[in-house]
This record gives sequence, structure tokens and C-alpha cells, in this order.
Amino acid sequence: MPELEAALGLIRRGADEIIREDELRARLERGRPLRVKTGFDPTAPDLHLGHTVLINKMRHFQELGHHVMFLIGDFTGLIGDPSGRDVTRKPLTPEQLAENAETYKQQVFKILDPEKTEICFNSEWGNALGSTGMIKLASSYTVARMLERDDFKKRYAGNQPISIHEFLYPLMQGYDSVVMRADVELGGTDQKFNLLVGRELQKQEGQEAQVALTMPILEGLDGVRKMSKSLENYVGIDEPANEMFGKLMSISDELMWRYYELLSFRSLSEVQRLRNEVKDGGNPRQAKVELALEIVARFHDGKAAKKAEDEFNARFRKGEMPADIEEKQVVIEGETIPVAGLLKKSGLVASTSDGIRMLKQGAVRIDSERVEDGAMAIHAGSSHVYQVGKRRFARVTVMKSEA
Amino acid sequence: MPELEAALGLIRRGADEIIREDELRARLERGRPLRVKTGFDPTAPDLHLGHTVLINKMRHFQELGHHVMFLIGDFTGLIGDPSGRDVTRKPLTPEQLAENAETYKQQVFKILDPEKTEICFNSEWGNALGSTGMIKLASSYTVARMLERDDFKKRYAGNQPISIHEFLYPLMQGYDSVVMRADVELGGTDQKFNLLVGRELQKQEGQEAQVALTMPILEGLDGVRKMSKSLENYVGIDEPANEMFGKLMSISDELMWRYYELLSFRSLSEVQRLRNEVKDGGNPRQAKVELALEIVARFHDGKAAKKAEDEFNARFRKGEMPADIEEKQVVIEGETIPVAGLLKKSGLVASTSDGIRMLKQGAVRIDSERVEDGAMAIHAGSSHVYQVGKRRFARVTVMKSEA
Repeated sequence: MPELEAALGLIRRGADEIIREDELRARLERGRPLRVKTGFDPTAPDLHLGHTVLINKMRHFQELGHHVMFLIGDFTGLIGDPSGRDVTRKPLTPEQLAENAETYKQQVFKILDPEKTEICFNSEWGNALGSTGMIKLASSYTVARMLERDDFKKRYAGNQPISIHEFLYPLMQGYDSVVMRADVELGGTDQKFNLLVGRELQKQEGQEAQVALTMPILEGLDGVRKMSKSLENYVGIDEPANEMFGKLMSISDELMWRYYELLSFRSLSEVQRLRNEVKDGGNPRQAKVELALEIVARFHDGKAAKKAEDEFNARFRKGEMPADIEEKQVVIEGETIPVAGLLKKSGLVASTSDGIRMLKQGAVRIDSERVEDGAMAIHAGSSHVYQVGKRRFARVTVMKSEA
Repeated sequence: MPELEAALGLIRRGADEIIREDELRARLERGRPLRVKTGFDPTAPDLHLGHTVLINKMRHFQELGHHVMFLIGDFTGLIGDPSGRDVTRKPLTPEQLAENAETYKQQVFKILDPEKTEICFNSEWGNALGSTGMIKLASSYTVARMLERDDFKKRYAGNQPISIHEFLYPLMQGYDSVVMRADVELGGTDQKFNLLVGRELQKQEGQEAQVALTMPILEGLDGVRKMSKSLENYVGIDEPANEMFGKLMSISDELMWRYYELLSFRSLSEVQRLRNEVKDGGNPRQAKVELALEIVARFHDGKAAKKAEDEFNARFRKGEMPADIEEKQVVIEGETIPVAGLLKKSGLVASTSDGIRMLKQGAVRIDSERVEDGAMAIHAGSSHVYQVGKRRFARVTVMKSEA
């Protein structure tokens, strides 16, 4: 069945793990649309490309004709997902949850077809559980098995407090799968434990266990750490087209191929063709421009993407910049860094006092605009072309270190 | 203040621990009636004397003019108290809970003054908590601190499963104290942890922490193991007067003094007087008769108690039994034992076949009635006088071994 193999290929694209693939194949063979669940805690009102990895996978299922359910965890958000955390999360207020949920809805429909997407809120059945329902749910799993989970195990061993309500989170997430009769649940690799709890609760309720499909956590612009708002190494999906384009042009060639796999809707064979062209001596810059154009167009439109490209190029011409500017990434401790310090950190000047002098002399430009104040604050998350004198250029992206 | 000291003396009587006594003293000094909480899981429909140890302590508080609250844990009963258990309890059905609660009410008023006793049901506020309230409650305590509890620690270390809902039990019990604004909570020694959780939750809610008063677990008729229905070493408070009287007459002299401390309402000075009389050569049998009379009168009435004593004595006269019959306690594996085997186990015959022969010869009497069938089943929990031939007598109380 070539059609089935093609479907499996698309579902597998970029996936970290499918538990279990034989079960998935069996369900696909039955031919009925699968109920595909993905849950989001509405904790971050602004989505970035890292969040879209899962949404893109939902779109794959949607393209294959399956029933996609976008679960907004307005109930579980009250608990706060402890996954991968080393401290207890602060719960959100109901007002924050409602506001964030609305933003989520607006943003995901830039990727998913709203006509074919079911939006669910788990407060609907979470509140109805009542206190006795919650007790019954808590009785379905043991303390020891919960403490086998990596992050809990580490925190317990390291005497980091785990609040008892954090044990309720995976159970509620599993209960969602029971209520939603999920055939497949998608999640990040840090969700694996929660997804497996769903399998168990479904079995306890006499349902067939859902297939758990995990997607990798997307690397940020530095290509090393996960994309995250707090690290300022992200591309927000509601950022202006110019910034989005510039940030995407700043990534390494290696990271570009990773983003092609996880963020592009080009077919894998097309991506392979681009790879081959670069391997055969083609300029990777062109592949990067095409990736940036695709992504900017997705969240704005094709016209805005083209305009962003033109302006990006114009800045280079105006400053008489070389075609290939070195990409630099600088990690800072706080929110900002004085420009003179940044010039030093990125190797454009020998010392901070050297930087201050060059600035005073009017020899420094940021995106072709002259800057003279050495104390001017450069924010984490920014990406600009810095020029010192006639010949020294670098595109410097500033990111934050871990807290 | 001699009155305060007398009150403290009565409160201290038989108590295992008071946390903390200085706080109790300070509250008593304020002069307002204390709100005294005692919770009972309506798991056992039939109370035995072991359960009355706590109820007697409630009566002490009632006699001192305090406000006594008898909490029927119809909500916590749905969870099942894990205290001191090595396996997860089965939850009761709502029907069982309601039935048991009714029995409880009827029985406790044999000891407490119904006019001065507030009966509470924690389903009233437990259900109102809802699932979010339950989550909030679960967030108020950590997994590590819960696992410090002795029984949980043992089960966790011994790979015995602990269901997550068992962690909710102490929290609910503590929440009861918050809602009931308890000044004092009474419980068995196995309740100490739960009582201390109540102190913490009250403090978290800005209340003064309750005083935790623990009472020892009453020994059963064997004087060693705790009184328990499953061990058949108990005196049920709705047993017929004759059985109650006979069982109480079967206890050791040492256990008698323990029962005087925990079960009698005679003042400690009166008990001391009895002790002195025995020490000075008095017959302990008379003290035992007086204890048995007091307890039988409490659950029946004075007339029934006197009648039970008379019939107890008559059986001895009728059988021409000696005044002082040896007391024997035999522990068996199952529910029953054939009479011939029991005669062997209690040392009245040399072997089971010897017993069968004596029975056939008509030489065996139970409570003065001739018995000939060696296979006749004697039940655990029974207490009878066995006679073999003319001279061999023993009162044998049969108990069950641990499961």
C-alpha cells in the first residue's frame, strides 16, 4: 500500500519517537480518520517557532484527512505542567488563562485549517470531575511510578520540593485522552511520560491505548539551547516580517537544515534537492533566503516576505556591506549590554575602551545607522549588522544566558 | 489555679502525647470552651471497646465544658485512611458509608451527651472543594514530606504500592480542622502525622494551630495485640451483656489496670485505692468484677450488668467449678477449631485423639453442658469454661492469628 507508506513517512518526518508504530500502522490500515490530540498549556501568550513544531505535525495529520483536536489546557494550566522543570510552577489566574487561550486560537490558525480543527478546553470535564472524581483519578497511579519520571526523580533525589498537586498533572492529561477518545497524542519529548500515562488510563477505562508521538524540542537561533523566550534566542510568530527574516538569516547552515525538517512544508524530496545543490557547491545563502521567505509568508503573507527580503538586501547595499557577513552570537547575563561592550564581546574591537573611542569618532554603524553613544543599550533578542570602520562587519545576535 | 490543673490532669489521663501541652494550657487559661474535634472513618459498623478510648477522651472534654465535635468522615472514607496500613484500602460505597455513619451515631451516644455533641460530616465541605479546590489543597504539601511518614516510608522502601490518592487523605483531614476551626484534635497514636498536617494547614490559613492529642491503641483481650475485630480479641459494644461480662472476666490482672485507666470513668484516685487493696492482699477478681459491671452497665444498664454477673457466677456453681479457674487464651489460624483440637491446644488433654475419646465417654463439658462430638466447631471470639473429667477446668478464650 504505497499510500499508507507515504502517510507513515509524513507522520514520521522529524518525529523523535512513535509508541508504538505497529499500533499506528494498524489504526491507519482501518481507514477511519484518527482522533489526534495535542494539548497546550496557555502559559505563554506569544507563540514562537518552537511551539509550531507540534502544530506543523498536527497539520500533517490534517492534510492526511484525520480529525485534529487542539486542546487548550485551561484546567491543567491551573496546576502547571511540571514536565522538565526543576521547580514548582506558579499557577496562572483564570483571567490570564482566558486571555492566553484566545491568543493561542488566533495564532494556530495561521498553520491549521480552522474548518477542520476542533478546539477543546479541558476545564469542561476537569471541573465536572469534582473532588471525588479527582480522588478516584489519583487512585489510578502509584507514587513510586510517578517518582520514576526523570524530572521528579532528580528533584526528589536532589531535595528539591515537589508539590503533591504536580502528581495530578500527568493524571489529568491522561484523563483528557480518555474523555477525548484520542487515537494519537502529540507532544514534545519532555511530554513522553505524560503521554504514556494517557495510554494507561485509557487501558484502565477499557479503551485502546493512544499512540504517543513525540517531537523534538526545537533548538533556538544559537543552534544549541532550546528555543525559548527567556533565552531570547527565539523567533516569535507575531514578530514583524523584517525581524523574522533577519533572525532566520542569522542561523548557521546546519541549523537551517534542521529548521527545514521541522518547520518547512516543502516535501522531504525537495529539501534533499536543496541539500544536493549546496553540496555541489551552491551558495547556502539562497536556501536560507527560501526558508526565511516560506516562514515569513506563513505568518504574514508572500508580499510581506518579499518586502522583508528586499529591505534586508537594501540595508547591505546602503552600507556597502560585503555579501557574506560573518554571523556572531553573543550570550549576555542581563537584559541588555552597552554597545561598546558588545563590540568587544563580538571581537569587532580589541577592548571596551577601544570601542568607546571608535564610537566617539563616528566609526561605528548599526544596520548602517551611525551610533556614537558607547552606553547605548543593546537588547537580548536583537539581531543587527555592526560595522566598525570601513572593513570590519558582523551580524550579531544577542541572546540571554540561563537564569 | 487548682481547677486548671485538675482539668489538665483529666485531659492527660491515658494520653500518649499532647502537642503541645504549653499551647493547651494557654488555651485553657483563656477560659472559653475549646472546639474539640475527633474524626472517625465509618469503615467498621460495629464499635468495640478499642474505639471507645477516644470517645471516652471526648467525654472528658465534654465534662470539662468544652465543645465536642464528632466528625464522621463520610468524605475521607471515600479515600480510605492509609494510616498504619501496609496496603491500599478499598474505598467504601456511599451506601455503606451512610449505613455505618448511622450506626456510629447510635453507638457513641452511649458515652457522649447527645445534647452537647456536634455531629459533623466532612462530605459537606469535601464535595464543595471541587476538583480545583482539591488541586489547591494538594499544592500545600510536598511529596518528600509526605514520604517521611513512617508507614509511607516503609511501603515506599519496601516497594509496596502507595496510590497517589492516599497522599490526599492527611490533607483532607487537615482541611477538616481548618473548616471546623478545631482547637484540639484527638486521635490514636497512628493518627499523629495526620494531626500534625492539620496544624500546618491551619497555620497556612492564618489560624492558630490545633493541639494534637494522641491516645494509645487499646490492647485486645490477649493484652498484647491491638484490639481488633479481625483478631477476634475484642469486646463489641453491642454484644450481649453476658458475653461482654465473660470476656472482661477473662483478661489478665495487668490488662485490667490498663482498662481501668483507658475505659473506666472512675477517678484515678479511686483506681489507685483499688490497686492498693489488691497490693495489700485483696482478691483482684473483685476489682475485675467491678470493671466488668461498669462497662456492661454503660452499654446496657445496671440491671443487665448485675444479671450478667449473677449468671456468670451461677454457671460456676451449677458445674461445681472451683472459684478460681485458670484463664487460657488460644490463638487459631482460621475461623473455627474442632473442640477436640482446642482441648489439646489448651492443655486439658494430652492429644487430639485423647480429647476425642474423653468426648465420646461424656467426660467433657462446655459451660457445664455435656458435649460429645469431637468435630464440633468452636469459633474464634468465644470464651467458655471447658471441663474435662472431675478436676480439669479452664476458661478458654479463642482468638484469631494475624492474616
